[in-house]
Amino acid sequence: MTVSPRTPPGVLELLPREQIAHQRMLDTIRRGFERFGFVPVETPVFELTNVLLTKSGGETEKQVYFVQSTGSLGKGLADGEKPELALRFDLTVPLARYVAEHEHDLNFPFRRYQIQRVYRGERAQKGRYREFYQCDIDVIGKDTLSLAYDAEMPAVIHGIFQELGIGKFTIKINNRKLLRGLLESLGIAVEQHAAVLHEVDRLGKLSRDEVSQRLAPLGAAGVLDKLDGGFDALAGHVETAGNAALTEGYRELGEVRAGLRALGVPEDDVRVDLSIARGLDYYTGTVYETFLDAHPELGSICSGGRYENLAGHYTKSKLPGVGISIGATRLFSKLLELKLLGAEQASTAHVMVLQVEAELAPSYSQIATELRTAGLNVELYASADKLAKQLKYADRAGVPLAILYGSRERDAGIVKVKDLRPNAEPREHDVPRADLVERVRSLVHTR
Amino acid sequence: MTVSPRTPPGVLELLPREQIAHQRMLDTIRRGFERFGFVPVETPVFELTNVLLTKSGGETEKQVYFVQSTGSLGKGLADGEKPELALRFDLTVPLARYVAEHEHDLNFPFRRYQIQRVYRGERAQKGRYREFYQCDIDVIGKDTLSLAYDAEMPAVIHGIFQELGIGKFTIKINNRKLLRGLLESLGIAVEQHAAVLHEVDRLGKLSRDEVSQRLAPLGAAGVLDKLDGGFDALAGHVETAGNAALTEGYRELGEVRAGLRALGVPEDDVRVDLSIARGLDYYTGTVYETFLDAHPELGSICSGGRYENLAGHYTKSKLPGVGISIGATRLFSKLLELKLLGAEQASTAHVMVLQVEAELAPSYSQIATELRTAGLNVELYASADKLAKQLKYADRAGVPLAILYGSRERDAGIVKVKDLRPNAEPREHDVPRADLVERVRSLVHTR
Repeated sequence: MTVSPRTPPGVLELLPREQIAHQRMLDTIRRGFERFGFVPVETPVFELTNVLLTKSGGETEKQVYFVQSTGSLGKGLADGEKPELALRFDLTVPLARYVAEHEHDLNFPFRRYQIQRVYRGERAQKGRYREFYQCDIDVIGKDTLSLAYDAEMPAVIHGIFQELGIGKFTIKINNRKLLRGLLESLGIAVEQHAAVLHEVDRLGKLSRDEVSQRLAPLGAAGVLDKLDGGFDALAGHVETAGNAALTEGYRELGEVRAGLRALGVPEDDVRVDLSIARGLDYYTGTVYETFLDAHPELGSICSGGRYENLAGHYTKSKLPGVGISIGATRLFSKLLELKLLGAEQASTAHVMVLQVEAELAPSYSQIATELRTAGLNVELYASADKLAKQLKYADRAGVPLAILYGSRERDAGIVKVKDLRPNAEPREHDVPRADLVERVRSLVHTR
Repeated sequence: MTVSPRTPPGVLELLPREQIAHQRMLDTIRRGFERFGFVPVETPVFELTNVLLTKSGGETEKQVYFVQSTGSLGKGLADGEKPELALRFDLTVPLARYVAEHEHDLNFPFRRYQIQRVYRGERAQKGRYREFYQCDIDVIGKDTLSLAYDAEMPAVIHGIFQELGIGKFTIKINNRKLLRGLLESLGIAVEQHAAVLHEVDRLGKLSRDEVSQRLAPLGAAGVLDKLDGGFDALAGHVETAGNAALTEGYRELGEVRAGLRALGVPEDDVRVDLSIARGLDYYTGTVYETFLDAHPELGSICSGGRYENLAGHYTKSKLPGVGISIGATRLFSKLLELKLLGAEQASTAHVMVLQVEAELAPSYSQIATELRTAGLNVELYASADKLAKQLKYADRAGVPLAILYGSRERDAGIVKVKDLRPNAEPREHDVPRADLVERVRSLVHTR
């Protein structure tokens, strides 16, 4: 009696070929984070429920996964009682808990990156995951935090997306204070702000006319004109009709723009877009969204912003911060679907040493060890299968080079190196035994 | 009202300094795995309960964590019913499920590595974790698997532990068939084998005499003499008293030893030790345990072995395999405690650019970008704090170099590079602005 082997719905489990590509993507992201001196943090997959769910009720709690050991399962729960542990649903709440818990051991401004999976008990549906990677960076200040860090966020992401080579993208930045102040300056009541911004947010999906029609009944028909004009055109309005929020937001956004310029980020790739609103509650200043120019239908692939106080639920210290997050699992699966990410290699090896004659097995081990010592990744095919089967295996794995060494080669003092890469020319190299390491190294690195 | 920010008991959460060291350890392990051409696999943190718990009852199930979404929590469970999802408690069951599920898409022999956390609902006590990393490699064959792979396992681990620089260690190998056959050849009944091996297993903790006394009532007083003699001394006994299991086990172990020699693994570091038994049920041939010579009290820090059939619960295919596993969290915390692993750097940056004069902020951004473009990790200190505070921050972070550039330096066309590493000599370098990248690069790499 066997059990059908299957994964739960709503997870992305990859075959080696895709897993290698996925790991390459995470490596690139991590390298990009470290290039700017962010330090790694990992938190446990579960938190104490009462620590994780400080905000009562709401959408989040409906999606939380609770964790129970066998023992506590037996005991049952009183009505309304929750299990002691719950899986993290994002990396922001764990960061808040981490910073508050370790506040006195951390170096502020605290710059952490975190690349871990998060969990949401969503209804399984295409493109929605119950388990997915988030890759977050945040800079947390104590009491204050310079606006220069707001400029750094898109610079980090710009470097990463460039290195990933996923085509032209645009990081759009805006400022929530500016938006609030602008609506206020146009006489729109505070109670209407959420509804107005919600409509503005549809600009990617609906036409400008449609959005304009939806804004009219809210008394906000004039908003789009102001937003369309862009940052520079707004100067006059700020001058004449500026309230405190508009003036401050405008100044902040200008400063962030100048910071980006100083960091050498191309203005065409990271742009002010006054129509970016990015939710309402959490972010209080700069906000970011990122789009693939050729695929706006994906929505924002990397978002974030500035917040006033990270950990008010856990500490009385004021901890302002700014952060940005890549939803790596969804991004990965989309990029793969669009063939914007390659997944050619099903192997981590540069070279495969084949078993031409079983009696020469010790030589194959020696050759493999020599190449490994030189820093190459080498797979030793250790079963005495037919050579055709071995070559098929090497080919399926996408290994660049195969090494064939039989008694004929041994007697001639050479090693045959087969280049398995498509369009390799020449396909075979007879390499003197003593030159093997050097030649293999140069073959690996020349393409 | 704030909630006390704390992690659940039984998890290891690290400060950045230790997290960086931990990550370096995992990186070394991963690089070691890839050096031998193992391919990465990641599985979801939870599995379907009925897939995970194919063996009914037992110790394992008592330690399983079950996962429930808010919705299913409300519904309650019938008596004896289990939640639909459970957290993985090791990487072997997920591997079995993965290989069975994806059997037709995998390339056999399938060589995978997996570095992920696993979960056990243990009573929290010192040194026992509810969440910990395992780093596993396995080679899975279809129907058969060459013994050469049994020799590869310790070779991989040897390379990794050498690179970790954790002092002298010994990987001990043995063979379960040989042990079984040996006990049989000494007239010990099969029903006694488990008890005898259990006593033999105490050899590290009890003296030889004590173990000998415990073996006598089991009619196994002669066992230790045979084990003590070691592999070569056993040849005569195999010749004269050999049964099928003993003969085969002896041949296998000899073959593995020869394989290790061909791979160039020092015989002093990877040794046959006939007293290693490694549990009873799962492993059927070669077994491994690894000890730090100076710290036998830690017990085995890396263990594994050969098994007959990986995924009998999920598929009718016969999938023999061999694998080995590093319990990275426990190992890491022990190494740190024993100061065998350093945790000096609380930063990923090679260089920190300080803010000497706020008006020069754009220049600091430019310098940082220049250095990053050259492949260096650079942190930009963006707050206009007092220089002393900035230097203290850089010092606490353990950043090797700090860059100071004020109007005095600007006018002189130089940049001041401060070497913050202990015993650096000289401590300060006045570097012409144009040579900055080259000089910083060489300073970073010379130590």
